[in-house]
Amino acid sequence: MTVFTVEAWRGELDGRRRAARRVFAEADCDVGLIFGTDRRGQAFRYLTNFEPLLGDMWLLLGDDARCFLTFQWQIIEARELSGIEHWQGQFDPVPLVVEALRQSGARRVGVVGLDRMPVPAYQALESAIPRLDLVDLDTPYTRLRRRKSAFEVGVLREAARLTDEMLDVARAQMRVGARESEIAATLAAIPLAAGGECSFEPTVISGVDDPVPIRRSTARTLNAGDSVMVDVGAAIHGYQGDATRTFVLGPPSSAQLEAWDVVRRAYDAALDLARPSVPCNDLHRVSSEVIESAGFSVAHRIGHGIGLATSYEWPSLDTEEAPLEPGMTICIEPGVFAPGVGNMKLEDDLVITDDGCEVLTRSDSTLEVPLSRR
Amino acid sequence: MTVFTVEAWRGELDGRRRAARRVFAEADCDVGLIFGTDRRGQAFRYLTNFEPLLGDMWLLLGDDARCFLTFQWQIIEARELSGIEHWQGQFDPVPLVVEALRQSGARRVGVVGLDRMPVPAYQALESAIPRLDLVDLDTPYTRLRRRKSAFEVGVLREAARLTDEMLDVARAQMRVGARESEIAATLAAIPLAAGGECSFEPTVISGVDDPVPIRRSTARTLNAGDSVMVDVGAAIHGYQGDATRTFVLGPPSSAQLEAWDVVRRAYDAALDLARPSVPCNDLHRVSSEVIESAGFSVAHRIGHGIGLATSYEWPSLDTEEAPLEPGMTICIEPGVFAPGVGNMKLEDDLVITDDGCEVLTRSDSTLEVPLSRR
Repeated sequence: MTVFTVEAWRGELDGRRRAARRVFAEADCDVGLIFGTDRRGQAFRYLTNFEPLLGDMWLLLGDDARCFLTFQWQIIEARELSGIEHWQGQFDPVPLVVEALRQSGARRVGVVGLDRMPVPAYQALESAIPRLDLVDLDTPYTRLRRRKSAFEVGVLREAARLTDEMLDVARAQMRVGARESEIAATLAAIPLAAGGECSFEPTVISGVDDPVPIRRSTARTLNAGDSVMVDVGAAIHGYQGDATRTFVLGPPSSAQLEAWDVVRRAYDAALDLARPSVPCNDLHRVSSEVIESAGFSVAHRIGHGIGLATSYEWPSLDTEEAPLEPGMTICIEPGVFAPGVGNMKLEDDLVITDDGCEVLTRSDSTLEVPLSRR
Repeated sequence: MTVFTVEAWRGELDGRRRAARRVFAEADCDVGLIFGTDRRGQAFRYLTNFEPLLGDMWLLLGDDARCFLTFQWQIIEARELSGIEHWQGQFDPVPLVVEALRQSGARRVGVVGLDRMPVPAYQALESAIPRLDLVDLDTPYTRLRRRKSAFEVGVLREAARLTDEMLDVARAQMRVGARESEIAATLAAIPLAAGGECSFEPTVISGVDDPVPIRRSTARTLNAGDSVMVDVGAAIHGYQGDATRTFVLGPPSSAQLEAWDVVRRAYDAALDLARPSVPCNDLHRVSSEVIESAGFSVAHRIGHGIGLATSYEWPSLDTEEAPLEPGMTICIEPGVFAPGVGNMKLEDDLVITDDGCEVLTRSDSTLEVPLSRR
């Protein structure tokens, strides 16, 4: 995979930390306190280029930066990736955070990650330091992450390339008798071998009688005529790809062809609107109209942001009214789920450009996989 | 893998829910409210045999049971695994929880998972229903999970068997030129192919100059003379194995042999004490004494509980003073990490029996891997 050098990361992180400090200063805060936890470490990782394999993470950002973790195992790695010297870990890191806050002398603290901060940690902060003012700055801080830098798009492009590789291998695995869970295992190994991670556990759902948007892969083996939905993502430096292909083993039935045509039209309708100034939820609306006017129901939102997360990343295309802007990165993923058809979904990652969008994931999306091939 | 039937699960879950209801009744609570979130879903999963791939989970346990999730994707799977009919999902499930609580008419609510409940969810519960009494029952509830049933030990035995398979394959991969990340990828595929999961990302750390307890695997390739620490776990039905082997490629140096001898003696010292009535932290103490008296430092606790979690599972052997009891399941994992030696750790899972313990993971723990073999 393309190497993003330590120097390039340092420059990127310096810029992000400057921008974060401005957010705290504009709210008249003495320091910033950023909280993250398992699978919700995006705000923390954005400023450190590091997320522990397990546990909570706290960053106290004043003139310097100090980090606190649940486990001390990975501190050497964390120091190297972040360029931050001060890291400490213990099973309950909250007392370390309280002590660091006390030492900082801060009275007004800009807090990020309050939406996921556990009750006891919050109460400990409030009770430990008299007259401490905790100011929720989730909204202005997360706004920093909405438009991706050229550096971030570069990393996402690499994640998309590796995601494409997973989908190409998935296509090559489509054979009668292949097992869902074994295909998922083969796909999961691809980003790990390349030094990345899976954005989420690869999902392989086969058959025509089990119309569920998502379930874990099972021991079911593929039959001729099956619809097989493969939803995967590779992550590089925490930046997560997310894409889906649907395969039919052998000639699709007319019901499958009809459903796939609806999926493609719903996808195209959203893609056509993926450009600056269009409200996010317009994409969901047009895509849903295609699906519903064909007599199917909309089982989930038509897409969401991608970046340091997938499903948790802003914007949620079903509800967000803000307009798209250049540098925003999203996936669009309309699906049709119906008895006799099974699961059919088409999903790609894209970045909004000055006058439209660029699709980052490019794996072949042909529906039929010939049965005859070896 | 051994199939645990739906009927067997139903019986097990019925027993657990009865026990949980007793906990709530003994605290004079009208209902129980159990919260879980990403990687912290153990309390919820214990009563439902289900944990979503992503998102929060809430269980309202009165005379009946109602569950609420962040994502609605997996509800068909959840219903089947849990035997609970009522499941709902939406991106912010808290309003669903508030409404269900209101309908229940409960005034006094036993809460489990308060230690991880986000501040806004807690505030929403408190403000939505006047005079609602939220009683923290984490302590008596988690006590239910300390001693594993015969059923649970059966599932853990299966997880241990699959963990052994990962370690056996790791040994077979020990070759000069093999890449850490590629070995990790091969190991990660094993539990997924079998329908299980990885307890955590497999860790492969090689070399003699990089003494860190844990880091992500890298693109480093193995050399003759390397110490290679492989820490892996397979999970079945959420029950997580966790075991480590250390390999040296070719004849170990005297420094490696000396360090390994310390690791083995620290392991044996803890294993000798693994029996009913011995305080948990005695195991950490004796094991640490062996390591420190040999002139090495203790980089982390010597073990912890295993079950529906690994590192998060009660007890933490360094601090817990409670005595071991039959049915408790733990891992012991002393390690030595030193320049010139690298990482050396030996870890096994075990269950406390009436008069001692049974070691569940059994993969060959021979240090040296001959260089000559093909």
